Amino acid sequence: MANAAILSIGDELVSGLTVNTNAGWIAAQLAQIGISVQEHVAVPDSLQAVAAAIRRFTGRVSVLLISGGLGPTEDDVTRAALADAAGQPLEQDAEALAGIEAFFRRLNRVMAPSNRLQALRPATAKTLPNSCGTAPGICMRVGRTEIFAMPGVPKEMKVMFEQAVLPELRANAPVAGRVSRVIKFNTYGVGESAIGQIIADLMKRGTNPTVGTTVYDGLVSVRVYASGSAQEVETMILEKTAQINERLGPLIFSTGDVSLSNVVGDLLTEKKQTVATAESCTGGLLAQRLTDIPGSSRYFLRGWIPYANNAKIADLQVDSDLLDRHGAVSEPVAAVLAENAGRIAGADWGIGITGIAGPDGGTLDKPVGLVYIGLASRSRVQVRRCQFAGDRNGVRLRAADMAMSLLRLAMLDLDADAVFKI
Amino acid sequence: MANAAILSIGDELVSGLTVNTNAGWIAAQLAQIGISVQEHVAVPDSLQAVAAAIRRFTGRVSVLLISGGLGPTEDDVTRAALADAAGQPLEQDAEALAGIEAFFRRLNRVMAPSNRLQALRPATAKTLPNSCGTAPGICMRVGRTEIFAMPGVPKEMKVMFEQAVLPELRANAPVAGRVSRVIKFNTYGVGESAIGQIIADLMKRGTNPTVGTTVYDGLVSVRVYASGSAQEVETMILEKTAQINERLGPLIFSTGDVSLSNVVGDLLTEKKQTVATAESCTGGLLAQRLTDIPGSSRYFLRGWIPYANNAKIADLQVDSDLLDRHGAVSEPVAAVLAENAGRIAGADWGIGITGIAGPDGGTLDKPVGLVYIGLASRSRVQVRRCQFAGDRNGVRLRAADMAMSLLRLAMLDLDADAVFKI
Repeated sequence: MANAAILSIGDELVSGLTVNTNAGWIAAQLAQIGISVQEHVAVPDSLQAVAAAIRRFTGRVSVLLISGGLGPTEDDVTRAALADAAGQPLEQDAEALAGIEAFFRRLNRVMAPSNRLQALRPATAKTLPNSCGTAPGICMRVGRTEIFAMPGVPKEMKVMFEQAVLPELRANAPVAGRVSRVIKFNTYGVGESAIGQIIADLMKRGTNPTVGTTVYDGLVSVRVYASGSAQEVETMILEKTAQINERLGPLIFSTGDVSLSNVVGDLLTEKKQTVATAESCTGGLLAQRLTDIPGSSRYFLRGWIPYANNAKIADLQVDSDLLDRHGAVSEPVAAVLAENAGRIAGADWGIGITGIAGPDGGTLDKPVGLVYIGLASRSRVQVRRCQFAGDRNGVRLRAADMAMSLLRLAMLDLDADAVFKI
Repeated sequence: MANAAILSIGDELVSGLTVNTNAGWIAAQLAQIGISVQEHVAVPDSLQAVAAAIRRFTGRVSVLLISGGLGPTEDDVTRAALADAAGQPLEQDAEALAGIEAFFRRLNRVMAPSNRLQALRPATAKTLPNSCGTAPGICMRVGRTEIFAMPGVPKEMKVMFEQAVLPELRANAPVAGRVSRVIKFNTYGVGESAIGQIIADLMKRGTNPTVGTTVYDGLVSVRVYASGSAQEVETMILEKTAQINERLGPLIFSTGDVSLSNVVGDLLTEKKQTVATAESCTGGLLAQRLTDIPGSSRYFLRGWIPYANNAKIADLQVDSDLLDRHGAVSEPVAAVLAENAGRIAGADWGIGITGIAGPDGGTLDKPVGLVYIGLASRSRVQVRRCQFAGDRNGVRLRAADMAMSLLRLAMLDLDADAVFKI
């Protein structure tokens, strides 16, 4: 199977001024055509460092993808580093020069003499056209390694990859027809180690497909990465999907990039139901997430953020006695917020959230991270007491996720306690 | 001068499922204490690959920073790779185990047996406490290289870096030498090319300090990057700060990582003023941003999300005639939302937002991206008509940013039209 390394060049990447988004984007494209990436490397705009990195990968991988260092200035060293690593002189490419000159004519701009440098390439290399910038790409073979050098500007890199690099990779794919595919299962409700226990036998290393877990913003995802012929991959993915679904069941709320709010929105739409929210500690985050989705006005009717106690009394008809007796952060207040949000808005579902997001305001009885989440249907109301970890932002995110998860499970007629205690 | 390499571990990074933000963040922190990064590497969750990468850097750099692979599951190989590369056995760390057990007790959760694995470390290593997750970090010296392994979850990594790694690096820093410093000015109100024109002469390449611009989520930042002796850097930063402040004036709302909501929160606190919001198209995003800030209950009183028209009528007393005549997305409706939000909540400021976030719902008259933002003080109300570019998420973000910017300028007694037309 073809394997690859990705080399990103630039002081701004290595010093942390710019986040390297190119490497991940290239890797995701390669996965789709069955080329597995072994390593990402980023080095500064230094001839020595770039040439050393190219040499290290030459012969070790079948494809080396480079981005950056093709500009017209002093600190653009990729051309020279390629020539150095391949032991070849740099030569002017007439066609590339004509392309750069045409680019400036098109924009009615005068070409600086330094732009001529961009038409240089190692003797045996060919250039790749750049349809949205001045820097042509470079393509050359050194030993068994096919090297593609693209610009660092993400937009230019992406267009060049799609127009010039991808067709070459497809044409030269050493084992025709091998593909790889990643499928991601998103779960909510238990921690990474619990998920790891449930599917431990599926996660043994060094297998194909491989199964791994990641945590992002408190949500645990399970990835299956399979490679082989299209047919093999299809079979592997189907088999693993069945196993993972059987083990994790309703803990899985979606696959791929489908968010919790998408899932909840789809369920509400499908059932033609509506929701209203009353949020204290999450301050509008839940409503914002629910309304992130195009067309959410079909199911999201109305939200309140009764931050101050008098707002809870005035807008959500919370009894001031109740507030005095139990405090704003309490089970009965969450219940009334949920019930009255739904009732006042005339919605099928009402959600009420009250808690202590921190960092201040915690007590021994009611520590930071304590959140009560009420969920009311037209006939009953349930309240869940949650103790979340994390900082203010984390507590708020987890509270909104939990609220959406409770709503999702209720719409699926599932009992949250049973699901989360799997 | 101390040099460093950054090693990121994870299939999800190498396969492109997740963008690697850790490496850049760590590099930026190191730059601030004068440690220059030579290379970033990302490898998959493979014992062989991780151990090989550690070996490659051992002896070559003074500091190796690792993130990822410290979780409790099969695919977390950093502990074993460190032991392998250092030729040491893994041992259980009693203190780390106690820390993990305490973490679960605090959350009232049962600890899975696999979490015990997280307390393993190579024999001569010490563990670093993790105050917001289960994975302790690892710190050890191999030859002349100090190695720090941190969790891959960005939040946990950042807290551990600041609390445990940074103090060690500072303590061991080779005394004198050059430092570098980045200062970032955050602006709101005009585009990147306009900012670029205003400070074109300061942005000449190849100088020290260098000045550059970046755009993130529609906000333009100006960075000054200076290096030299501590004294030189101080002088350069002071000089550039004065020049940039003079040119950009009130377009700059903050420096560093201080957000618009922080700035607005500080102004409200300082003036002992309060705010209430009524948001339609932003669906709670503005309230969420305003309440992101610890202590925001001092100034944020109450919010409404009157998504449906009957909610605008019932909660914000918008006249149904007004809605019929002008439509919900209109200047007079934004004005009433702002005025009544402030009045009903008894707040000094009321903000009303109504617009078309898209992707659907646009017309020739009222295209997607059209947003009216009302800002009411106790004595007057102003409405700004905005046409934002971008997708649904972008339009909502820009609307919330504009609302906060209008409030900021009003509190500073500045005229938004004059500032944005600089």
